[in-house]
Order: sequence, then structure tokens, then C-alpha cells
Amino acid sequence: MSYFKNINTIQFEGKGSDNPLAFKHYDPNQVVLGKTMEEHLRFAVAYWHTFNAAGADPFGAGTMVREWDQYSGLDRAKARVEANFEFMNKLNIPFYAFHDADIAPEGETLQETNKNLDIIVAMLKDNMKQSGKKLLWNTVNMFSNPRFVHGAGTTCNADVYAYAGAQLKKGLEVGKELGAENYVFWGGREGYETLLNTDMGFELDNLARLYHMAIAYAKEIGFDAQFLIEPKPKEPTKHQYDFDAATTIAFLQKYGLKDHFKLNLEANHATLAGHTFEHEIRTAAINGMLGSLDANQGDLLLGWDTDEFPTDLYSTTLTMFEVLKAGGIGRGGVNFDAKVRRASFEAEDLFLAHIAGMDSFAWGLKAAAKLIDEKILDNIVDNRYRSFKEGIGAEIVSGKATLALLEQYALQNNPIKNESGRQERIRLMLSEVIFSV
Amino acid sequence: MSYFKNINTIQFEGKGSDNPLAFKHYDPNQVVLGKTMEEHLRFAVAYWHTFNAAGADPFGAGTMVREWDQYSGLDRAKARVEANFEFMNKLNIPFYAFHDADIAPEGETLQETNKNLDIIVAMLKDNMKQSGKKLLWNTVNMFSNPRFVHGAGTTCNADVYAYAGAQLKKGLEVGKELGAENYVFWGGREGYETLLNTDMGFELDNLARLYHMAIAYAKEIGFDAQFLIEPKPKEPTKHQYDFDAATTIAFLQKYGLKDHFKLNLEANHATLAGHTFEHEIRTAAINGMLGSLDANQGDLLLGWDTDEFPTDLYSTTLTMFEVLKAGGIGRGGVNFDAKVRRASFEAEDLFLAHIAGMDSFAWGLKAAAKLIDEKILDNIVDNRYRSFKEGIGAEIVSGKATLALLEQYALQNNPIKNESGRQERIRLMLSEVIFSV
Amino acid sequence: MSYFKNINTIQFEGKGSDNPLAFKHYDPNQVVLGKTMEEHLRFAVAYWHTFNAAGADPFGAGTMVREWDQYSGLDRAKARVEANFEFMNKLNIPFYAFHDADIAPEGETLQETNKNLDIIVAMLKDNMKQSGKKLLWNTVNMFSNPRFVHGAGTTCNADVYAYAGAQLKKGLEVGKELGAENYVFWGGREGYETLLNTDMGFELDNLARLYHMAIAYAKEIGFDAQFLIEPKPKEPTKHQYDFDAATTIAFLQKYGLKDHFKLNLEANHATLAGHTFEHEIRTAAINGMLGSLDANQGDLLLGWDTDEFPTDLYSTTLTMFEVLKAGGIGRGGVNFDAKVRRASFEAEDLFLAHIAGMDSFAWGLKAAAKLIDEKILDNIVDNRYRSFKEGIGAEIVSGKATLALLEQYALQNNPIKNESGRQERIRLMLSEVIFSV
Amino acid sequence: MSYFKNINTIQFEGKGSDNPLAFKHYDPNQVVLGKTMEEHLRFAVAYWHTFNAAGADPFGAGTMVREWDQYSGLDRAKARVEANFEFMNKLNIPFYAFHDADIAPEGETLQETNKNLDIIVAMLKDNMKQSGKKLLWNTVNMFSNPRFVHGAGTTCNADVYAYAGAQLKKGLEVGKELGAENYVFWGGREGYETLLNTDMGFELDNLARLYHMAIAYAKEIGFDAQFLIEPKPKEPTKHQYDFDAATTIAFLQKYGLKDHFKLNLEANHATLAGHTFEHEIRTAAINGMLGSLDANQGDLLLGWDTDEFPTDLYSTTLTMFEVLKAGGIGRGGVNFDAKVRRASFEAEDLFLAHIAGMDSFAWGLKAAAKLIDEKILDNIVDNRYRSFKEGIGAEIVSGKATLALLEQYALQNNPIKNESGRQERIRLMLSEVIFSV
Repeated sequence: MSYFKNINTIQFEGKGSDNPLAFKHYDPNQVVLGKTMEEHLRFAVAYWHTFNAAGADPFGAGTMVREWDQYSGLDRAKARVEANFEFMNKLNIPFYAFHDADIAPEGETLQETNKNLDIIVAMLKDNMKQSGKKLLWNTVNMFSNPRFVHGAGTTCNADVYAYAGAQLKKGLEVGKELGAENYVFWGGREGYETLLNTDMGFELDNLARLYHMAIAYAKEIGFDAQFLIEPKPKEPTKHQYDFDAATTIAFLQKYGLKDHFKLNLEANHATLAGHTFEHEIRTAAINGMLGSLDANQGDLLLGWDTDEFPTDLYSTTLTMFEVLKAGGIGRGGVNFDAKVRRASFEAEDLFLAHIAGMDSFAWGLKAAAKLIDEKILDNIVDNRYRSFKEGIGAEIVSGKATLALLEQYALQNNPIKNESGRQERIRLMLSEVIFSV
Repeated sequence: MSYFKNINTIQFEGKGSDNPLAFKHYDPNQVVLGKTMEEHLRFAVAYWHTFNAAGADPFGAGTMVREWDQYSGLDRAKARVEANFEFMNKLNIPFYAFHDADIAPEGETLQETNKNLDIIVAMLKDNMKQSGKKLLWNTVNMFSNPRFVHGAGTTCNADVYAYAGAQLKKGLEVGKELGAENYVFWGGREGYETLLNTDMGFELDNLARLYHMAIAYAKEIGFDAQFLIEPKPKEPTKHQYDFDAATTIAFLQKYGLKDHFKLNLEANHATLAGHTFEHEIRTAAINGMLGSLDANQGDLLLGWDTDEFPTDLYSTTLTMFEVLKAGGIGRGGVNFDAKVRRASFEAEDLFLAHIAGMDSFAWGLKAAAKLIDEKILDNIVDNRYRSFKEGIGAEIVSGKATLALLEQYALQNNPIKNESGRQERIRLMLSEVIFSV
Repeated sequence: MSYFKNINTIQFEGKGSDNPLAFKHYDPNQVVLGKTMEEHLRFAVAYWHTFNAAGADPFGAGTMVREWDQYSGLDRAKARVEANFEFMNKLNIPFYAFHDADIAPEGETLQETNKNLDIIVAMLKDNMKQSGKKLLWNTVNMFSNPRFVHGAGTTCNADVYAYAGAQLKKGLEVGKELGAENYVFWGGREGYETLLNTDMGFELDNLARLYHMAIAYAKEIGFDAQFLIEPKPKEPTKHQYDFDAATTIAFLQKYGLKDHFKLNLEANHATLAGHTFEHEIRTAAINGMLGSLDANQGDLLLGWDTDEFPTDLYSTTLTMFEVLKAGGIGRGGVNFDAKVRRASFEAEDLFLAHIAGMDSFAWGLKAAAKLIDEKILDNIVDNRYRSFKEGIGAEIVSGKATLALLEQYALQNNPIKNESGRQERIRLMLSEVIFSV
Repeated sequence: MSYFKNINTIQFEGKGSDNPLAFKHYDPNQVVLGKTMEEHLRFAVAYWHTFNAAGADPFGAGTMVREWDQYSGLDRAKARVEANFEFMNKLNIPFYAFHDADIAPEGETLQETNKNLDIIVAMLKDNMKQSGKKLLWNTVNMFSNPRFVHGAGTTCNADVYAYAGAQLKKGLEVGKELGAENYVFWGGREGYETLLNTDMGFELDNLARLYHMAIAYAKEIGFDAQFLIEPKPKEPTKHQYDFDAATTIAFLQKYGLKDHFKLNLEANHATLAGHTFEHEIRTAAINGMLGSLDANQGDLLLGWDTDEFPTDLYSTTLTMFEVLKAGGIGRGGVNFDAKVRRASFEAEDLFLAHIAGMDSFAWGLKAAAKLIDEKILDNIVDNRYRSFKEGIGAEIVSGKATLALLEQYALQNNPIKNESGRQERIRLMLSEVIFSV
């Protein structure tokens, strides 16, 4: 059965095309800086936004018109699996990602829930085999069910913590079964509503304990996916523990976990934390922690996670610039953790939105490649820091300088001359590059 | 000579007093939880806001009416020293804090600048001896002079870096000479304006190098002050590297600096970063990094550092609660890094504002002491986490639990029961406590 | 049947009480500035938050434990009616407020929906008669149903507009039937997601047309409730048309509607728009537009409508100060448009939260009354503006001054002397007043 | 004498050029939709940012290297005049704008200040005659001098109000003398720091009185410039009265001033108020109040007015789209109320920044023209609202519909069908259009 009958496989038609259901920039086989676009971008469909989300918000019910909603329970779960592979095929997307709760309905008991999962996982495995599609990452949803009202790994209730552990165990097994390249931890309720009733130190200790158990169990079963933590500063809790990249790195360092994790960074989470996405990627990169990307964009005039499809070319270009400079995304990918607007409720919008995101990222990749290939920013940076390549600068970098030496130098080095940072000029150059590729 | 002729020494007159120039809550000798208020609070005057700031803002000139402005150059610097000690005496404040540029005018050369500093430092030393007043911390201003336009320890210009090193060396010497209890690093320009021209990794490496040099030099000269870093997320730069407590801790851990530093936390910097002040203090405390406090408050509807005098009793109470729970402020203190509003330009406002801040902190101290003494919040927390004291909870905390064990437990533990977090009730209790002390 | 079996009628027990289920400040019969607390505050229960809301958020399912959820459909609707009056009785709350969709389930057709409404409205009427409780306001929900995805009065679809008109007609009839004191318009989807596909001018014209029809119909049926518009800047739409008080006033003026409406102001909406609540009340008051209050509070570090129960005494005091200065709330009231936290899911929390809100407002009322009775702020203001009572100031106020006259005066009036605004002192005074009542 | 010796007149060199000191998009004589670019854009230099600003910020001294700073007092003022015309000539900018305080130094007395103004105004007039350059608008600075600490038209001090009136009178005379096309009111200190000491209603009444005096005096002297008010929500005051376009319109309506004013809208002020720039322009346009534009851009992750040069093509395109749809900018213009970054301190940066801004606006103009010429958005909008062109929709628009009629229609019109808003698709289209011009 087809869930998207009116949509044909999306083709690359190039810049001049008028066809809204065509790629104009994304061409999986086009080679950019020595790799194909598909290899660079490793796009993934986010199962939850595409196949589960109904378009509800705090002020209104769902609006999405979806063929699979004619079914319910396990039947709907199966229909979604079919829709997922049809969708990936038509869009030429090689990866997908999910939470356990996205793919199978929760049962009355953990036993029943796991049984439901087994049925769907088997079906996913078959479909993956036939289609060649891969699982970028999986995770478990430890935030939606009311039991997690006070957190999962950071709950005040040991019974809930135990449940979370059991769920996580199953999640690792599912990941292994499906050959997931990564396993993600997004602590949806790992945070607090008010410090007044919260033992933050204890909760973080417990969270670290859960991660250590996960590492041990993954090793035990031979699940070699890259573990990823996804930072977010707030929402749903008033304060999420994994606030941003730096906070997460501090946590991992403190608890001896740094070598076992990388980061799954999300654009809208970055801006909610007061950072650009490129800042978060750079932070991860210089700490050797760049894992994967949740591609979306926020509305900076709004204070919540809008998870819009990424269409701002400045952002996609700088994102891909950071990725390329970091040596690529590795086992990670560009996962569209993005939802069509509540008013974009037709099935066709799912395609148009993914095309918008994929074309914007492909466009950004080409622009970033030009920035790198022509050393446009590298030349600026090299020139700007050139004083550290010789003389007192070189002694500083080598670690040989002392305050006394610096003072001796400074006392005879008067006046000092600086050079302009040229920000306005560089910004116009960036527009020129983006719109010339 | 007196710079505040119309102001007498401020007395404690207790709650009923109508005198605006009297303390109603701060009584230095009153004992709270076994220590005097003076010992708990260790108030400090911020030299720059009180004696240097003129009330200018980006849209207007200074407004402050200050007696010492009849002088200029070194004469004005000396007048400010006298005013400082008169002010501390009249307000019964035991500590003060300064940047090098606050106390002495910058000369044409580093040599001249240091000579000016020496003259004023000698004068400060004399005054401290006579008055018994102490230096909570000193620092060097490596952000106001145009030479630091691209940063100091993170500049792109090695000559500037060398100058910063020389200035820092002098700062450490000044701190030693005056017996500073702490030495603060606030990286006013340590950040970036745009990533497009910035080598962030290189800049952070250089910053760490500067800190290592400072540690070595302090050791060399026997300066045993506690080193403190003061986080701030933005302003003046678009992105400050020491964004918040967690970011700073991550940096210190990465570069092997954690044992040499603690944090100087500021309320308004916390809220600019998206955190409550109590969150930042708790973060520092659970990492053993609580150093000192810059007491002020921001306006959460404004997006810049307003540095208002702290008068919100909810905030002062929760701040002192965190400090008391952490075992006190140690060698740190409560430094009024706060400025009178541009419209509060009379000399009397300096006193009224400090009285407002000191009374609000004393009030908060008493309320926090009551919260602790009567175990009001502790009982809530103890009860909330009680499931971790036995059974599966105890096994989790002991580190003996595995995912398999948790699964085994969870499979037979159905349903799970949570309890309300009671936030609304606790908030009303907090008001009752604050307004009953 | 009782839905709150374990809760007795809440009594006033005064400040010293340890009983969490008692009022310590709210005493309906206590006289403050010549009126009883009940008359000043006119508290209302928000039906939707108290009887409908389940505690769901964008990341998780409902958590609330509610007795009436054992029923469904019209039976649940009836149970909620009973629960409402039991709740109001036990808390001594005289008013309630609702949307049509809160009280009765929507049917397959408008006919069926209206029939459901009629059944419940009859039941409400009976209960009101027996209990003496009153309807502060009613409204219709024209934002939750998917049909309103593009707005109601500002939709791009005339069929939806017609439906909204029909629903509004019924809402006016319901209000008349129940003797509502006010009728509220909150335009949940009256705004836009993107200007790119929006004819904003046309949409606002249509909205005004709908208001004119409502005025005409209310007149026709003799429904004399005060019409209120409730501003909100964003959420759920990217940009709500009734952004804040001033924007709404501009709209009403433009379309000749100003005499027919007042404003229903909400604290959390004010702060989302970048204003304090007291600013919005003052704005309404000086335009003769203060209608009613939706009492809650936001978390200023979060960017969405948290609708917390109001417990900040600074805010409740300043709110009641503005209300008293404006001559009282008139036919309006203090409606708790506030929801218990998702983690406060027990039935008892509904009482504790309302007690927290009512006590905080009663406390604020007493503090505001003291501010007014002792002319604490009035004296400051009178003194501050005294120069406008004579001489050139009086000529300015009388309207007789011209620029030439002002120039003539200014040319001979040198220098000008200003006085301090004393903000820091006033802030401490405010804490002292709140404390002392 | 030349102040920009190394800079030649900037030429249009077209897209392919590598020359940073060349326009690639702005060609004054190029015709777009029937008018030249020069006629559409009416660019203006902001005197204050370009010739007065030194690059100081709250944490540091000025950095700008400017040839005219070798002079002081009136000599420097004269040098700035020469630099202004040299700059406008080299950049081919037809307009400029200034505050009185920008062009001439303030004297000890109002008499002296006015004398200084007269000298410079005469010099400006000569230069304008010779060069053909025009004054887009002038204004008076009633916010920088300490006398305006509590406001000017909204001060609590009648002496200050009188001074403001005198200054405004001179400003109108200067505008007439120089043939200003507009006269701008930006109320830098017209707002409040705290409501606690503020009589907001009285202050707004006084502000309206000042505007009425200005209208009368302009009429008296035959100064026919368009009066403009420039909204800003905050900074420097905690709350500025002219918060945004809608607030300003409400004020003007209330005081019978609406016919005498239009709005001068600024991009960064819009975003500080929580709006996009295009929202503010649309708001003005549908109220017949679009006057002029202050072109710049803010950093949405920062909470203050950064006044960056506009380089975001999405924003310049949508800005020009709104302007074109509104029928053009009329007597207004595109004034670069933008400052080079503190780190862009070389004279060359002034040119590079203006080129960046002018090219970005020219680019935006071309893209907007394409959007309009090809009816790209118009077709979307027309189709979206088509239901209002006939049947029940037409009756609504005609004003004939009543609630009863709408109900009658709705009762038989079931179900209702909506169509997708297609936001994601439209966003990608926008990128494609910007790219293709």
C-alpha cells in the first residue's frame, strides 16, 4: 500500500526548475570536496515528527491529515513503518532515527511494551534489508509518560529510575538489532522545575550512574554505536541539566564519561541557550566531541522550541562550514528534527518541507565548500593571528613564556598597533558566496 | 577632608525605624547560626561603581555628583582613596575590591602606569592599616583600553597578549602587597564578535596558557590569594568564553586548571545566561567551586547587565540559603558589584543603595537561616528522595545496580506511584518565611 | 457526590497557622480601605485550568489525577460542573469563568455542540442559583479545534469565519443566560505564522467586523456584559494581533470600537510582551480601559506562557496598587488563569495552589492599601512633579505655553537643577511595607 | 582637505568584481519597477554614527581612528562637515541626517549652543548647495545631556521641559533652514526607570502637549517637513513610551495627533520589541503611517541595540517588499542608523560597512521587485483568501453579515475544509528568488 500516492520519487532537476517537488540543489551523487553530497550530509528522517506528530500544540488539537491514522494500535504502528520506508525511498534519504515510543505503542506492562517493540523492530529490520536504508540512531523516550514527571535518570523516585534502566536496556538491544550507528540520550525530563525541592547534586550523580550502566551493558552485548548526548537548556523542564555543549562536556569530564560520548547538537536548542548553532558545533569540535546534528531552526523572536525546517542559508552554510572544518560528521548525520508547521497539515507538506531542508543544506554545503576551497575565511584568520607565528607570539604558543618575560617585552614595545576585524566586509562576502554557488 | 559631610556613620536601628539612613536588618554583631552577620556576609564595596562610575550610558553622559571630581589625575585618584575609606567606615563595610584602572590613572607608558599604581597602592596600604579594612579581591582591567579591542588573553595580537601578561604580573604583585584574599579574572573582552574571523580553539588555548603563567608567578612571589574566574555570557562581546559556571568549569577541567580556581558568581550574569543566581551557586557548590559573590540584580525584562543593587528578598534569601548549605562563602564575600541608577545621582544615593543591598542581604540571611534551622526545605527534600535510601534505590546509589538488575526489578514493579512536587505550596511557604524574620 | 472528599471548607486561620489548608491572609469579610477583601478581589476560578487541564505539555502526556476522569462525554462534563461548585464553595470563591469548550463536549455538528451546551448551561444555572456563585465571564474557544488552524475572526477561510460567528452568537446567548458580568475575547489564533502568506490589513478589518456584529447582537438580545479583549503577544501564533494593551487600544480606536471594550489583562502575557504587569494595568487605566485581571505569573527566564499561580508578593502588591489607584476592578475580577505545575498532579494541589494565589493577592491588597493609606508613593510622586504646579510648569499643563515662551524662559534659566529619583531607597521601602502588613 | 585620502569614489562594478571598495548591486541609475535605485532607496548617512561615534561601549573607551579627531571644539565640528560631504560624494549617497548635538558642540548656555549651531548650519547649507546633497531629516538630542536624566518632554522637572521646548524650537528652525524633508522625534529618555516614582499618565499628557506646540510652531514658520516618531521599546530607559509602531499609533490617536505624524521605523528597535522589521512596516503601512526607515540589524541573541549594518538579505528583501507594496517610502529614506563594530575601527571600515549595507539593500530591492513583478507572494495570498470574494465571504466583507446570518450559514455548512499554509515551501522559494536576482 502507498501512503503518499500522489508523490513520485523526488528527482534532482537543478536550479532552473519550477517543480516544487524536485530538488534544485541536493544531488546525492554530486561530488563536493572529494565526497558525494550523500556522504557529506547523511540525511535522516525523524520518525516522531514525520510519522507520529499530529500538529497539536498547548492551545489546540492535531491538524495533520495522515493516511495511517485510519488504523490504530499495532496496525497503525505497522502502517507507519511502511510509510517511513516509502517516504525515505521517495526522498532518497538514507537514514532514519526514532525513540522507542515512536515506533510501537506502549502496553499496560513493560513486558507488553517490549513485545510490541519486538514485533515492529523485526518489521523495521526486514524493511531495512530490502531497502538498504540505515538507522542513524535510536533512543528511548523517558519523558512523555506520566511516570517520568519528576525525571528518569534524575527522578526522585527509585522505582522510576529502575523503570528507566529497564527501558534503556531494551533501547540498547534494539539499537544493536538494527545496527544503529549512534545511540542518543536526550534527557527530556532530566532537569528541575524548582530548586526548592531538588537535590541537584544527587540527581546528577544518579544520571552519571545510569550512563555508566549503559556503557557496561552496551559493551556486554557488543553494541558499538557511538553514544551521543543532546543538550537543551530548557523546555519541558524549567532547567535542563544538559543546558548546552559546554555544560554537557563539564558533566562528562566530572564523571569520567568523556571518552564514551559525543554530542548530538540541535540548532534550535543552541539558540534557546543563547548560542548560534555554529558556536555549539565549534565548541564540540575543539573538544573532540562533535557527534551528529539535529537539523532545524528556531524563531529567535519566540522563546520555545519551534523545530522549524531549516531554510536559512546563512545558518546552513555556517553549519556545514563548521562540519567540514571539523573533518566531517563521521558516524553522525543531518537528522531533520523538524516539524511541519501546524498549518502545513497536508501530506505533501512533509515532502515540501524535507525538500526545503535538504536543498537548503545542500546549498549550504556547496557554499561552505567554496569558503574552504578558496580559503576565504582561512586567509582572514591566518592573517589575523600571524603575530603568534614568530617572536614573542611563538614563545607564548610554545609554552615558554612567563609573565616576567611578557612584561620585559611589553615594557619596550610601545605603542601597540591593532588591525580592524572587518566584520561588515566579511558579512557581505558571506552573502556573495552563498548566493554564487 | 570629608567627601560625605552630611552622612553620619550608619547605625542599626531595627525594624521600626523611619530613618532612611539606618540599617533595619543588618547588624554586624548579630549572631545567626553561630556566626555574626559580618562573618557570614563579608560585604565589600566595588570601587569602580562607587568611586569611578559617572552614570554614563550608551545614550548619555555621566550624571553623578561627586565631590572628588573637583580634582583630576593622581589627585582625584588620591581623593577617591580617602572617599573609599570614609565610605567603608560610615557603612561598616569590612572589604573592598578594585581593578588596577579604578585606583590609578593609566599613564602614557606601562612604566608610568605602574608608577601611578605604586603611589596609590602605598596609600591604600596605609589606610587599610589604620582602618582595619581589607581587600576582598583585586584584578586588572584588560578590557577598557582600546588595545584590548580584540581581547587580552584571547587577542589575535601577540603584542597585546604580552601587554596583558605584564599587567597581570603587576596585578598579582599589587594583590600580594595589599594582602588580597582573592584575585579575580573577569575576561571582559575574552570572547568574540563573530566566529567568521575567530580561531576559538587557539584563543582558548592561549587563555589557559596565561592562567598557567599566573599560577606560576603567584607561587613564585608567595601570593596565596584564591584565584577566581567570573563567568558572564555576553556583553561587551557577542559571546564571552566564560559563559556561565558550567562552561567555566569545563574549561578549567580541560586545561588542568580546576584545582587552582574557584568561581566569582554574579547575579545579573546568571540571569543573562538564562539561569537563576541560585542555580549558578548550586552548580559551583556541587563542583567544589564556590568562591565569592558579586551581589546585584538584573531586570529580567531587559537584555543587558543593569547591575542594580539587590533588593529582591526572594533572591537574597535563596542566595544565602545556597551559601549556607555550601558551608559558607569561605574567603569570598558579598561584593556589591552594583551601580546606583543614572537617575540616583546624589552622593546620598550611594549610601541609600548600599543600605538597601546590605539590609536585603541581612534579611535574606535571616530567612535562609530559618529555612535551614527549621529544616523547612530539607525535610521536603529528604522525604522526596527517600526511596533511594533502601532497596533498589540503595543499590543504585551504591553503584551495584546494573541495567539487568533494574530491568528485573521493573518487570515486577507495576504500577509505579509518584507523589506531587508541591511547588505552589512551597512558594507560599517561602514568602511566609521571608516575611516572618 | 464529592470530588474532593479529603478537603474541608478552607478557613481563615491568620498568620501564625501551620495548616497548609488554611488562609492566612485572605479573609473575605476583612475590610480594607472601606471595602471587604471579597469586594476588592472578586476571585474567580478558571474552569479550563482547574477542571479540564490534564497536565500535558508538548513533551508529555497528562499527569493530573482527577476523580471526574472516571466518566466521559457529557457525564464527565456534568461531573465537572459539580466539582466546580464544590471547589468554589470549599475555597469561598465567588466567581468562575469558562470557554464554551470547557463546559461541554463538542459534537459532530454545530447543532449537537449547541445541544450539549444547553444541557450544561441549564445545570450551571441551577447550581449558581443554589450556591449564589456568579459567572465573572464566559467566552468561546475559537482556537483549539483544527478548523481554526488559520484563525477565526482573522482566518483566510470564509466558512471558518462563519462558523466562528455562529459560535460567538451562542457564546453571547450563554453569557446572557448565566448573567455573565463580562464577555471575553482572547484571540488564540488571531495572528499569523508568517507574513509571507498573510494579508494582515484584511484580517484585522475582518476582526473588527466580527466585533461590530457581536456588539449589535448583544444589544439585540439585551446582554449587557462588559466586553473585554485579552492581549497576548505570541503563542500559539508567531505573532498575535492583540500584542499588548497599547496595540489593542490602537486597534479599537482605529475601528471605532473603543467605547465598547475594556481589557482583560494577564500577568504572564504582559511579561511575554516585555512589560511588567503593572505597566499593562497602568496603560489600561490611563486610557479608561481597565476591565479585569487574569492572575498568574510567568517565569521570566522562560519564553512561553507558564501560567503559574501568582506567589510573588512584589507583583501582587504592585498589581493591587494599580487596581486601587484606578478606582478598583469594577465589574472585573481576579481570575486565576493559572495552572498547577505538571508535577503538582494531586487534587490537593488545586487547593494549595489557589490558597497560595489568594493569600498572595490578599497580602498584596493589604500592602497596597498601606502604600495608599500612608501616601508612601503618592508623596514621592507629588514632590517629584511639584514644579508643574506653578510658574512655567503650570503654563505648560494649562496648554498655554508655546515653544517661543519655553525658549524665552529657558534662555534666562541657567543652570537647571534635577533631583535624584531615589529608586534604590524606594525599592527597600517596598519590601518593608510588604513585610509589615 | 581630504579625510579619506586613500578612498576613491566608489563605483558600481557588478557581481563579478573582486574589489571590496566597489558596489556590486547598488547602481543608482539602474531602473527597477519604473524608478531608479536612487529614487527607491534614498540612502542617508547617519551623522552621529559615522562622524561622532568613537566606538566606546559600557566596558571600554573609543577605538575609532578618525582624521578629524586631531581638532577639537568648533574646529572639529567643521572638519566633520567637510568629512560628511566628502563621504557622501565618494559613496554616492544623496541624503544625510543629524541631531543638533552631532553637528555642533554644546556651549555653556543655550545662547552659546545656538550660536555654535548657526555657524555649522550655515556651513552645511553652503556644502549642500555645492554638492546637491539633501537633508533627509534632522532632530534634536534631548537625551544625552545630564539635564535630561528624567526625560525631556516627559520629565518631572518643568525647567527641563522648558529647555527641551527651546531646543526643539531651534531644531525646527534648523530643519527649515536646511530644507529637511522630515523632522524626527526619538524620545531617548521619554520613558521611565520605575513606575514606583512615575506619573505615567501625566508624562504622556505633557509629551502630547509638546508635540502640539511643535506642530503649531512649524506651521508658524512654514516648515513643512513630515513629522516622524521613532519607536523603541527599551534602552536607555527601562520602558520607553514609544514602545513600537502600534503603541505610538495608539498614543497619536488618543491625543489627536495622528494626522500630523508618520513613523520612522528601525529594524533593531523592531526586534527588541519582539517584532520582525517587516511586521512594523506592515503595521505602519496599513495605518497610513509609513514614514521612513532607520536601516540596521540587531543580533537576536543579544538584548540590546547593536545597530549593526544590515547585511541579512532575507531582511533587506522583506523590508523592500513591504516598502514597495506600501507604494514606496515617499519623503522618507533608508537611513543607515548603523555603527561599525568597535573592532572595525579603521576609516576604511566606514566605507566597507556602507557598501555592505547599500549593496544588501539594493540586492533586497531587486529581489523584492521580482517577488512583486512575478506576483510570487501575491498569487499565494490571492488564492488563500479567495473565499472572501463571493458568497458568505463577500457578505462578510461588505459589512452586511450578522451573527445570525453567519449561524444560519454555518449550521448547514459541514464539514469545513482548510488548505495548507505551505510555509516551508514559501521559505525555500524566498531563498531561490533572492539568489536569482
